[in-house]
Parts: sequence; C-alpha cells; structure tokens
Amino acid sequence: MGELQSSTIREILKMPQTPDSVSFSAGNPSPLTFPHEDMAKIAAEIFQNDYVTALQYGITEGYEPLRAAISQRMSSKYGIGSDLDDVIVTSGGQQVIDLAIKVLVNENDTILCESPSFIGALNAFRSYNARLVGIPVDKDGMDIDSLEKALRTEPNVRLIYTIPTFHNPCGCTMSLDRRKRILELAKKYGVFILEDSPYFELRYSGEDLPTLKSMDTEGYVIFAGSFSKVIAPGIRVGFVCAHRDIVSKMTVAKQVIDVHTNLFFQILVDRYLRLGVIDGHIEKCRALYMQKRDRMLAAMDRHMAGSAAWNVPDGGLFIWAELPEGYDGLELCRRLKDRNISCVPGNTFCVDQKQVSRGFRLNFSLPSDEQIDRGIAVIGQVLSEYIRS
Amino acid sequence: MGELQSSTIREILKMPQTPDSVSFSAGNPSPLTFPHEDMAKIAAEIFQNDYVTALQYGITEGYEPLRAAISQRMSSKYGIGSDLDDVIVTSGGQQVIDLAIKVLVNENDTILCESPSFIGALNAFRSYNARLVGIPVDKDGMDIDSLEKALRTEPNVRLIYTIPTFHNPCGCTMSLDRRKRILELAKKYGVFILEDSPYFELRYSGEDLPTLKSMDTEGYVIFAGSFSKVIAPGIRVGFVCAHRDIVSKMTVAKQVIDVHTNLFFQILVDRYLRLGVIDGHIEKCRALYMQKRDRMLAAMDRHMAGSAAWNVPDGGLFIWAELPEGYDGLELCRRLKDRNISCVPGNTFCVDQKQVSRGFRLNFSLPSDEQIDRGIAVIGQVLSEYIRS
Repeated sequence: MGELQSSTIREILKMPQTPDSVSFSAGNPSPLTFPHEDMAKIAAEIFQNDYVTALQYGITEGYEPLRAAISQRMSSKYGIGSDLDDVIVTSGGQQVIDLAIKVLVNENDTILCESPSFIGALNAFRSYNARLVGIPVDKDGMDIDSLEKALRTEPNVRLIYTIPTFHNPCGCTMSLDRRKRILELAKKYGVFILEDSPYFELRYSGEDLPTLKSMDTEGYVIFAGSFSKVIAPGIRVGFVCAHRDIVSKMTVAKQVIDVHTNLFFQILVDRYLRLGVIDGHIEKCRALYMQKRDRMLAAMDRHMAGSAAWNVPDGGLFIWAELPEGYDGLELCRRLKDRNISCVPGNTFCVDQKQVSRGFRLNFSLPSDEQIDRGIAVIGQVLSEYIRS
Repeated sequence: MGELQSSTIREILKMPQTPDSVSFSAGNPSPLTFPHEDMAKIAAEIFQNDYVTALQYGITEGYEPLRAAISQRMSSKYGIGSDLDDVIVTSGGQQVIDLAIKVLVNENDTILCESPSFIGALNAFRSYNARLVGIPVDKDGMDIDSLEKALRTEPNVRLIYTIPTFHNPCGCTMSLDRRKRILELAKKYGVFILEDSPYFELRYSGEDLPTLKSMDTEGYVIFAGSFSKVIAPGIRVGFVCAHRDIVSKMTVAKQVIDVHTNLFFQILVDRYLRLGVIDGHIEKCRALYMQKRDRMLAAMDRHMAGSAAWNVPDGGLFIWAELPEGYDGLELCRRLKDRNISCVPGNTFCVDQKQVSRGFRLNFSLPSDEQIDRGIAVIGQVLSEYIRS
C-alpha cells in the first residue's frame, strides 16, 4: 500500500464548497436521474413482505433472481454472455476491478491499460504492486499497434484494462476495427481483457458499437458492469460477466472480502429491473446528459476556442480538453482552484502521474446549467490569462 | 487464490432444505431480532428527504454522522477509542479483516490466531498467502503461554488475530488476566492485535469484561465491529476503530476495493442509533438468545450427555461440543447429514484443516425451538450409534 494520490491533487479536489464554486471534477451522475420514487415504493414493499430475506446474510454470488435478471437483460439487449460465462453481483463496478486483479494478477505481473485512464482502476492496480504499462489513446480509443508491441515486449502481461466505450477521462470510443483487433490480440497472446463499461448505455450521438464481451466467444473478456450511472451509485451494486472459471474464483475471493453485496439493494435492483421501466429511464438519463453535454460544448466554443482543444464525446460523463504545446493541465487546475473552479488535471490519470499532461477533465453530468455557463466562462478567462502569460 | 474450502465441507453445508431438515451450521442471527419496523420508517424518511445524499457517491471513510455516532457510543459505553484512534465505516466486519491484512501483512508474514477460529478470517489470511500459526484455546480463551512462545520463535509475526469475547466457534471468553497479558505481549513484540468482536454485546450470563481495545493506550489494537448481529447482516455495515495511521491506510485501500459502503444503509443505521432505542433492542436480542441457548443446553443434557462434552457459552451464537478421544467430528457431521441435520465439523475451523478434530459447532440463534428439540434428539441418536459402533 503505497501513497496512492499526490497531495497536490488532493488539495485541488478538496476545494471548499462556496456559493460561487463550481465542480467539474466529480464523476457523479446527476441526482435528477435517481429513480427515487420507484425505489421508495419497492423498498417499502421489501420491508413489508421480504425483510427476512433482505436483512439476513445472503450468498456471495448475489441474489439469484437479480443474477438471472442481469444475465437476461445483458444477453438479450447487448449479446453479452455465452454458455461459458457466469454473472455475479458485486459491490459496484470498482469491486470487479479489485477481484479481477486478485484472481488474475500476481505481484510484479504487467497490466496494460490506456494512459490516461480511470484513477480508481490505476490505484487498484498499484495497490497490488502490479507493473503498469500505459498505452496511448486517440479519438478511436486505445492505440492497438502500441498494444501489440507491448504484448510482444513486456514481461508477464496478465491483463489488458480498457474502457472502450465513452472512455474516462478521454471521452473517446474504441472503433469497431480496434475492438476486433484487441480481441484477436487477447487470444493470440493468451491475455485477459477487463472491459470496464459503467457508461456504455449512456450514448447521446453516433451509432451503438458492440461491447468487446459480446464479440468474445472464448472467455477472454471480463465485463465490469455497474448500476451506478443508470440507477444510483450510493447503493454500490454492480456485476461481472466473465468465464465461469474466473467468476468462480472471484466468488471465493469476494467471500472473504465482504461476504456479499448489500442484499436489500440487490433485491431492490432486481424488482426495479422487473418493473420493465429501465430502458425508458435510461432514455431520460440520455436526454438530460445530452442536453448538458451540448450546453457545455456550446459554452466551451464561446469561451475556450483558440486556447484549448477538445473532443466531442458520444456518451458518458466527461469532456477531455487539451492545452496548446508547452502548457500544463496541472498549472491550469491550480489557477482554476483560486477562482473556486475544480477540474481534474490530466497527469492524475496517467500511469506515470509525474509526467506533465496538457489535458484536463471536465464533468458535465453534475453541475447545473447555470454552473456550466458560469464555470466555463471563468475557465475561458483563466485560460486566456495562462496562455497569454 | 488457492482452494479455500474442502469439498467435504461444502457437501455437508449444501444439504438440501427439506421440511424435516435442521441447520445448526449457520452463523446467522435470528430474523426475529431485525428491527424491521423502525428500519422501514427510517428508510421511507430517507427516500422522502435525503435521497439525493443517500443514493449519490459518498466518501470512503463513511457517512460522517454515522462515524461520529459509532465513536460516541463505543467510547461512552465501552471505553473504546482514544485520541490516537479513528473510526471508519466498513462493508461488514469481514471487510475490517481484509483491510487489516492488506495494510499490515505482506506475503509470507506470520499471523498468529486461535485454532480453531472463524473460517472467514482464516480464509482471508490464506487468500493473501500469509503464514498462519494456530494457538490453542481453552475455556479462558487463547493460551497466552503458547502465544508468547510463538511470538518469540516464529518469523515475521505481523498480527495476532483473536475473537476474545464469545469466541467463534468455541464459545469461550478470554479472561481479564489473559486480556492484560496479550496487550503486554503486543507491546513487547511490537505486533498488532486484530480484535474481532461481532458478538461482544450479546452476553447472556457472567460479567462484562473490558474489550482489548478499551485497555489499549498505545494503538496496538484494531477493533472490528459489526451491526450484523445487533441490527441485521444483510445490510453489510460494520466499522473499525484503530490508530488513525492504520485507519488512514485502510481508507486508501478501501477506496479502490468498493469506493464506500452502501450509503443508504449507513444513513439508516445512523438514524437508528440516534433513535436511542438500540440498547433496549439489544436487551431483547439477549433475552431471545439466552432462552435459545438454554433450551439447546437442556436438550443436549437430555440427549447427548455421556457421548459428548460441551461448554456453556456466556454469549454469542455458538456451542462447541467435543466427542470422546478417538472420534472424529467430521465423521459425525457426515452421519448427521444423512439424517438431514447440519453441523460444522471442527477441523473446518483449524489452521490445518486436514487435522482430525473431535469438535463440532452448533448454532442456536437461527433454529426454532421445535427444531432445536428435534435436531438435538437426532444428534443424540446418531452420536450414540457412532460412539457404540
């Protein structure tokens, strides 16, 4: 257990909440998307009729009807899961990452991942003293030529970690061609792929692409799913779909980590899925987030054009922006902090956090429209001061 | 990740549920003790007024008011926690064990623990490839002379794991004298003690003894607490009280394991504690379990006297019984399985599971009075057949 987060980052993120402060640094969904009325009704019913089951110990694999409901939905809607595979319920998508490392990776084994990538995954890998090798990312996702080179040259590669759809922090989506190639490489080199997909149902533009897992016929892909962005994150309910031998080892590992995931909310999520309203609910989430994304992009066009460049993410929660050559995302975020605006500097997401990154990540799901307009205007000012100085 | 449970045990515990089957093998509290009506009311209030907080991401340390409520109750009622210490909320008591290993123990370090001991802890230690050394247990708890010898002679001892109060599976309680000695030894050898105390508030006879943590002035004791036996286990809410430097490392570790514990139930437990009814509720749990313990002991006196010996536990959920010399608890449990009765064979709880144990563990919290009477009568028959054969 080393030091997992540099104090500079902690300071930037610990910004006090004042009336004029705006946080673009979160990864939180909007509370407007929580289906709290349906959840309240279901909770009352569980307390009425099923509290003996919901409050007692459960099995580590998870509540059986929920496992079945997840398998059914993922399979029929997205083609995820084959006869080789199994599904267990986890304490959020984060736990899938932890369990995958625990069952697949030994100390000093190599994990290949996009750099930049999700901090929670990078820190999980670091906590097991895995060797991390970063693979560059462009608008079509992980650079597969670099990946192949790393597979050829790096020792003891055990796992490829990727967020192929609406990448955190980059917002990009892996192209279909690259999806096919990464699967071929996994097979060729006998390496597992951890496909982390908490956002894949939140698409606002472009065409749906198949998940890696849906194209995985031989059990190389471990799919980490989550209800955090389509129901609510505070309940900590996620799932893994992977080859049954891996899932079986994950179950043994999970048993001694937390016995099982909160059973009350497993039952609640099961009942919610069986209401048959989730697809409509996700449509509403998409509409809200698309509006927020577009509002933020419009504000960025107004205030930041010329002093930064950014992508248009087709989904997810984040916009990744980059400063011109020679400028540092960390310095920008420090200056923004003095103006009560928080963004996450790009180096935070890098395999080597000491490297200078021109990038910074902006979250559009949590701030209000007013905060988006005002916050981006301030970023525009700070940016032009920084670039001019 | 080795094979963590022998298939024999799995077979014994996987007994089908038939109308005449009786399980004495669980570690579950009675659902009669779940304060479901208060919980239902509080849940409805949270959905009404605080769902935005309860369903959103929270901080890894846990819901601040709950941390304060736990600290306050543990400190004022049990003297647990000093200025050196801190409290965080965990996903059950089991997670404290996992986190303690993660932050304190390296591969091949030695952990000293009672043998027999709690399977969930032993398997957690095994999952990290720690070296386990078992210390014998008698009616006054861990044998401290053996412990001192092990501290003197075993290499790289990092942790002493103990369940000093109403031991699982043995039912015994560490004497005050031994409590003082184990603390002295921890200090002398610079080794941490993980005090696992999920049952310590469930005393039915005898006098309260101070927890190790309440006598710990220098931060050697990590106290693992749980709401599983005094509120409900399905919610997976526990806590750790330990030196703030250790708790700080545990927080970093927990962040990449599950981000935080289910926030809705953290808030619910906080509100429940603030109702001021928990001490009265625990009194009711004690009365129920004392009656069940006494009913089981009476049935054992009627049916098992002469063919097995057992302790009278002053609290907790278990009675530990032992066969005469030359007989095997595992063989007894196999024979019981054929009669639809499940007990856990003693070897399961041993550091070396291959060793023959004359012991078997009986749970009295879950079976009904009728099941206790009938099940113990069958055990008496099977026992006398086995001893006579």
